[in-house]
Amino acid sequence: MDEFELIQRYFSRPAAKAVLGAGDDCAILQTAAGMQLAISTDMLVAGRHFFPGVDPHALGHKALAVNLSDLAACGARPLAFTLALALPQAQAAWLEPFAAGLWALADAHGCELVGGDTTRGPLTLCITVFGEVPGDARAPTRTQALLRSGAQPGDDVYVSGTLGEAALGLQHQLGRLQLDPAVAAACSARLERPTPRIALGLALRGVASACADVSDGLLGDLGHILARSGVGAQIDHAAVLAACPWAGSGINAQMLRDCVLSGGDDYELVFTAPPDLAGAVAAAAQTSGTPVRRIGSIQAQTGLRLRDEQGRVRDHVPIGFDHFASANAQADEVAQ
Amino acid sequence: MDEFELIQRYFSRPAAKAVLGAGDDCAILQTAAGMQLAISTDMLVAGRHFFPGVDPHALGHKALAVNLSDLAACGARPLAFTLALALPQAQAAWLEPFAAGLWALADAHGCELVGGDTTRGPLTLCITVFGEVPGDARAPTRTQALLRSGAQPGDDVYVSGTLGEAALGLQHQLGRLQLDPAVAAACSARLERPTPRIALGLALRGVASACADVSDGLLGDLGHILARSGVGAQIDHAAVLAACPWAGSGINAQMLRDCVLSGGDDYELVFTAPPDLAGAVAAAAQTSGTPVRRIGSIQAQTGLRLRDEQGRVRDHVPIGFDHFASANAQADEVAQ
Repeated sequence: MDEFELIQRYFSRPAAKAVLGAGDDCAILQTAAGMQLAISTDMLVAGRHFFPGVDPHALGHKALAVNLSDLAACGARPLAFTLALALPQAQAAWLEPFAAGLWALADAHGCELVGGDTTRGPLTLCITVFGEVPGDARAPTRTQALLRSGAQPGDDVYVSGTLGEAALGLQHQLGRLQLDPAVAAACSARLERPTPRIALGLALRGVASACADVSDGLLGDLGHILARSGVGAQIDHAAVLAACPWAGSGINAQMLRDCVLSGGDDYELVFTAPPDLAGAVAAAAQTSGTPVRRIGSIQAQTGLRLRDEQGRVRDHVPIGFDHFASANAQADEVAQ
Repeated sequence: MDEFELIQRYFSRPAAKAVLGAGDDCAILQTAAGMQLAISTDMLVAGRHFFPGVDPHALGHKALAVNLSDLAACGARPLAFTLALALPQAQAAWLEPFAAGLWALADAHGCELVGGDTTRGPLTLCITVFGEVPGDARAPTRTQALLRSGAQPGDDVYVSGTLGEAALGLQHQLGRLQLDPAVAAACSARLERPTPRIALGLALRGVASACADVSDGLLGDLGHILARSGVGAQIDHAAVLAACPWAGSGINAQMLRDCVLSGGDDYELVFTAPPDLAGAVAAAAQTSGTPVRRIGSIQAQTGLRLRDEQGRVRDHVPIGFDHFASANAQADEVAQ
């Protein structure tokens, strides 16, 4: 199978939304009048972001899901994506399920593959995803996209769905934690097949004052919102813990806490909204069928403070997942 | 140096054209009224597309250049790009010249970095580039971009600049060919610092009937035009050879021929235009300061025919650079 056969067999579909899809030097996209293009790119490296032997169907899903999650965080509607793929070899037994996992999620979100690149090399995936968000008719240089920079003192802080399951699943797979088989299966599914919160992101346009996706851990990603907004926050530890369905199921308390507060790969949304829009937040959760939980509030004083179960408030230094800081043990977790 | 410091130090600049640049979940681009977005992505893997020890300044240039070349082939004006970078380690001695090479070319084309991803892993670069092309006001699903699919029987076939130098440079570096030092330096420069033909691509809008960039070898990339256009071509071997400044300098004739006809990495444009636009082609070459050479003509009969110096016409089976076909020796050339 040569490069062109590979692309033809697994990665070719006629473009529906794009003016021009794959097969030429460039793809051509045209946004609707008044719309802007939201763009995000993520690279996944074998042995770093996933186990080399991971189910290729799940990998196809996850590679696109982590990118769609960035669109969700901006309140963008998915349009299209490109896929660059380095493979040690072109094997149908791997490519077929990988492509199936990728297409299933792409189709579910009407996101079409418009181009890419394949080459031989250490297994690496790089997807760039494109979504549409309304511009601001009064100011062409502004946007209606949800940004990290709009949080205001007094805003409530919310998180969607559940937290910590992906990190618990990883700890289990690494043998550092023994989970019951049913819990392990649920957590591994969240690790390997995250759900990008596209519908919630769309419903939060005009409601959330700031938004980010939880890819590097709740407190780390909330920290990005705080930094870009120039504010601080107080987070209620019990409320965050309650976002993990396995809290109270006998998992080591420190491990649970670390996974929920700082574990990566949740791909939930953390966002802020003024208290008078609490009803609109609830309506967005309802419309999108996505649970949403209030976990704290934005404060003028910078920094992140955690209020524990006993009502004590302590400063927290947010540390997210960093791919280069050797001090962070997580950075080498998946590495063989 | 952690991931955020690395991005901050080497890859952060305020966005000028983008509504929103790096630092949020997505970048936001807004095309001008009536304009479409041309998108291309390329992945470069150490040991495959470049020697691991290559000058990082040259690598920064080339990683962006090969993507800009795709915009040139579509007649698109560069706007922005994203960079995903897997690095074995974060070393200032490597990152600083790499970033300098990247920025120098980006600034020369007004192409701004709007986002990206950095991670630890085998040295791999994935750039996705965005350019602007006019849409077709009469039909929103059409484009004024130069495509591979518009060549018509009777059209002339042209190529820009010089051919074969990059491939000669590679053969020299691999020790398969002994070039004079001055020739070796010129050829290595073309291999390591290709020139994307942006100005020519823009000047050819409305003139060229089809266009592609020469990344995988002249005959292979012309073959893509022929396949997408449903036509054939006859190419004049002597005219193509004359596009190599080192023809006649004593280089082995077979090696020279292979490098000129099928060598990769030239990043010139191969394009077609009707004979009555020959003056417009010459004007585009003049305007853009890019030499252009007629090398043959499009024919209704499919297939590619080469007319040799003695006037004999022979069929040619185009073989380009394929990253998976083991029969193609080039595919493993750079691999260690």
